[in-house]
Amino acid sequence: MNTRSKEWRSSMRLSVNYNYMMKKFIGEDGFKDADLSAMKEEAANAFSYVDKNRGTGMMGWTELPYNQKEIVEDILATAKEVRRKFKYFVVLGIGGSALGPIAVFNALCHLHYNDLAPSKRRGPKFYVEDNVDPERMQALLDVIEPEKTCFNVITKSGATSETMAQYLIVSDLLNKALGDKASEHIIATTDSAKGNLIKLAKQHGYKTFYIPDGVGGRFSELCPVGLLPAAVLGLDVKLMLAGAAYMDGLCSRPSIAKNPALACAVLQVAAMRRGKNVGVMMPYADSLKLMADWYCQLWAESLGKNVTLDGEPCNVGQTPVKALGVTDQHSQVQLYTEGPFDKVVTFLSVGNYRTEFDIPHGCEDIPDVAFLGGHTMNELIAAENKATAYALAKAGRQNYTIVLPAVNEFTLGQLMFLFELQTAYAGAMLNIDTYNQPGVEAGKQATYALLGKKGYEAKKAELDSAPAEEEKYTV
Amino acid sequence: MNTRSKEWRSSMRLSVNYNYMMKKFIGEDGFKDADLSAMKEEAANAFSYVDKNRGTGMMGWTELPYNQKEIVEDILATAKEVRRKFKYFVVLGIGGSALGPIAVFNALCHLHYNDLAPSKRRGPKFYVEDNVDPERMQALLDVIEPEKTCFNVITKSGATSETMAQYLIVSDLLNKALGDKASEHIIATTDSAKGNLIKLAKQHGYKTFYIPDGVGGRFSELCPVGLLPAAVLGLDVKLMLAGAAYMDGLCSRPSIAKNPALACAVLQVAAMRRGKNVGVMMPYADSLKLMADWYCQLWAESLGKNVTLDGEPCNVGQTPVKALGVTDQHSQVQLYTEGPFDKVVTFLSVGNYRTEFDIPHGCEDIPDVAFLGGHTMNELIAAENKATAYALAKAGRQNYTIVLPAVNEFTLGQLMFLFELQTAYAGAMLNIDTYNQPGVEAGKQATYALLGKKGYEAKKAELDSAPAEEEKYTV
Repeated sequence: MNTRSKEWRSSMRLSVNYNYMMKKFIGEDGFKDADLSAMKEEAANAFSYVDKNRGTGMMGWTELPYNQKEIVEDILATAKEVRRKFKYFVVLGIGGSALGPIAVFNALCHLHYNDLAPSKRRGPKFYVEDNVDPERMQALLDVIEPEKTCFNVITKSGATSETMAQYLIVSDLLNKALGDKASEHIIATTDSAKGNLIKLAKQHGYKTFYIPDGVGGRFSELCPVGLLPAAVLGLDVKLMLAGAAYMDGLCSRPSIAKNPALACAVLQVAAMRRGKNVGVMMPYADSLKLMADWYCQLWAESLGKNVTLDGEPCNVGQTPVKALGVTDQHSQVQLYTEGPFDKVVTFLSVGNYRTEFDIPHGCEDIPDVAFLGGHTMNELIAAENKATAYALAKAGRQNYTIVLPAVNEFTLGQLMFLFELQTAYAGAMLNIDTYNQPGVEAGKQATYALLGKKGYEAKKAELDSAPAEEEKYTV
Repeated sequence: MNTRSKEWRSSMRLSVNYNYMMKKFIGEDGFKDADLSAMKEEAANAFSYVDKNRGTGMMGWTELPYNQKEIVEDILATAKEVRRKFKYFVVLGIGGSALGPIAVFNALCHLHYNDLAPSKRRGPKFYVEDNVDPERMQALLDVIEPEKTCFNVITKSGATSETMAQYLIVSDLLNKALGDKASEHIIATTDSAKGNLIKLAKQHGYKTFYIPDGVGGRFSELCPVGLLPAAVLGLDVKLMLAGAAYMDGLCSRPSIAKNPALACAVLQVAAMRRGKNVGVMMPYADSLKLMADWYCQLWAESLGKNVTLDGEPCNVGQTPVKALGVTDQHSQVQLYTEGPFDKVVTFLSVGNYRTEFDIPHGCEDIPDVAFLGGHTMNELIAAENKATAYALAKAGRQNYTIVLPAVNEFTLGQLMFLFELQTAYAGAMLNIDTYNQPGVEAGKQATYALLGKKGYEAKKAELDSAPAEEEKYTV
């Protein structure tokens, strides 16, 4: 079916089923209808807060599905060129500059993409480097050929130490190997005006894409940060944006019953207020495993705050935990079933996987094995997903399920926009600044001090002091 | 230095620094010395409970560093043969049968091992399949050649649906491709007497390794479950066992000040009792990223229980959360710093990485970048680790650090045995059965019912009932 047709798109609509959040399904620990009704006004206020601020301040991300026509054309042309010229594509970025590209790669490319022969891939080998572990940098250089590699340096400010350290290493390497041609191997994705990377880009003539104003790292996957890597991999970025726009349309009303993102936000916030300080994100698909990582940053960094918008001290936020079905049934589900009543589990279920795999008959004299024969792996994973949700409900544990009819660009666009809106609504309900991250400043400054950056001498002295006690609590 | 020498081994001793768990370092939320002293007797009791039960019941794992001499010789000989004959080695297992092999592979092999040319690897390409996602099974078959592959099927009971489904698929495939020779491509790791896989192994003549009595899945990494895959990868499994024995020796006294595993158990249990229901495991090394996964199963499944050993209802357990330094500084640390006071962060720090990587000078007119030049990545990651621990402490957040002088077989053996002992002590302090997992039964039975297994008809009827309400809470 044509992916532009209305029928196909509505067949790909995400849905949220939250029976197992409710008292009538799970008993004592569930919500009564009245509990949710009581939050109607609060939800409507959060909706209108988000709606009113769309496209302003740090809410530029809401317009990304609509305002990138020309940029997308540039991205597609650049991606085509990259595929033609390079054997490897390496993203240098961290946090929001890495998690989105990784999640989309994992979801929409072959699960052993880099192992495939070039003829079986739509793009170059793909790596995202989001750490400064020296072993990892060496490992990367062991498997790529810099002279056949395009490096996409992604940092809005150009002051991200990790990314800029990688940039120093890579640009030095390219300069030595390629001289004048080095700059053809670097694409910068950064702020259009402020910051260091744009200066460097202009100085060296790097091809550049811009991170729009009002788009913070964790909300940047649907701008060139995520779209360029996706396009290089041969993915349909227009369809991804169309999915996001579609979800935006589904979330255009202030009612829990009609707005999936608002429903998720209300469920989570209501649960948080009852002491559910842990939120598990558990996709039943290897392809969505790293989507949970992307979500974890969005949720943790947006909501984990110590002051309200009115300046009142608070310590809010829910700890997101990533899990994978069915794998983590054999690791975490014991705790989810019998441990403290401190969590909400969100399942991501897939309607149709992109492959069907038969389980052959065999072992007919062993009933524990024989019953599997004649089923498909698809049936097995779906049954385990359903069974786990059911067993958690029977144990009185709150859980709900987001169903993706299939995993593709369109549903992924929907899912990411759903999570972004959910986060924005939840932040509004918690009355905190959803878009800042002041809590990481202290660590940055201590790093600067330890590395002897100018201006951090006092901090250095502070860090160096009182080592006498250091040995005290050591085993 | 010779890895058998006493000097080398003591230079490789793990240490635990818990300054930042203490009030005098972090303020209000920290422990007073008196708080820990008050737990002395409880800790000593936990120690003697574990000590008394060593090698009995489900505590067979304590003896694994000592009682496997012949088995190790068989493993080494088999591994040599596997390396000679096969191009691919695939573990079919889930939970404890997968997490250990994955963690050790990640820690001790090249970070892009499968991308390396065969001449640069010490063993065959390596895959661990711990899910039943049809797309993943297809993806595996797209990149291996079954006729050049050795499959290591790992399940104690042979009743693990996921592993046995994979077994049915793989044995059917091998039979069709290789006929009589198929059985030479399968190694079974299972119970020596009970269960289905041992029956199949005898019937088909598979090479077999045994999972000893008293060794449950999550405590099985140091038996053939983990040792065979490690040996196939060319790792020194004797040194791994020596590391475990070394840690066992370090934990031979009933005092928090002298026994690192007991200290960790006391710190965690004390924190849990003060409402720290989240335990973050945050290695500062890509190589240890998946060690956190292994730990998460051990901790979650062992301690997440709803009944005490005296039969009293309880709902205990701490939710383990995996994070990676420095990567997750840009994702989770905002929440850790400003969110609820509900967590303890355990850092895994590395003294010496296996590579040193210089950050070249450059961008001298940009102070935010220039200060990095002349340092090494090693210095950068170490500074960020120290800075993050310090910043958390400054924000009053409990955290402690386990230092590995280096990452190698010996330190990894220590680390795993430390965690196992810590879990055993903590379980004793919580007065729960550390070794069972009854909470996953309900989900298994529901899966059986959904797939039409004989004997589960009533369950099936239960699951099928009341679908009328299903649509009610859907958005």
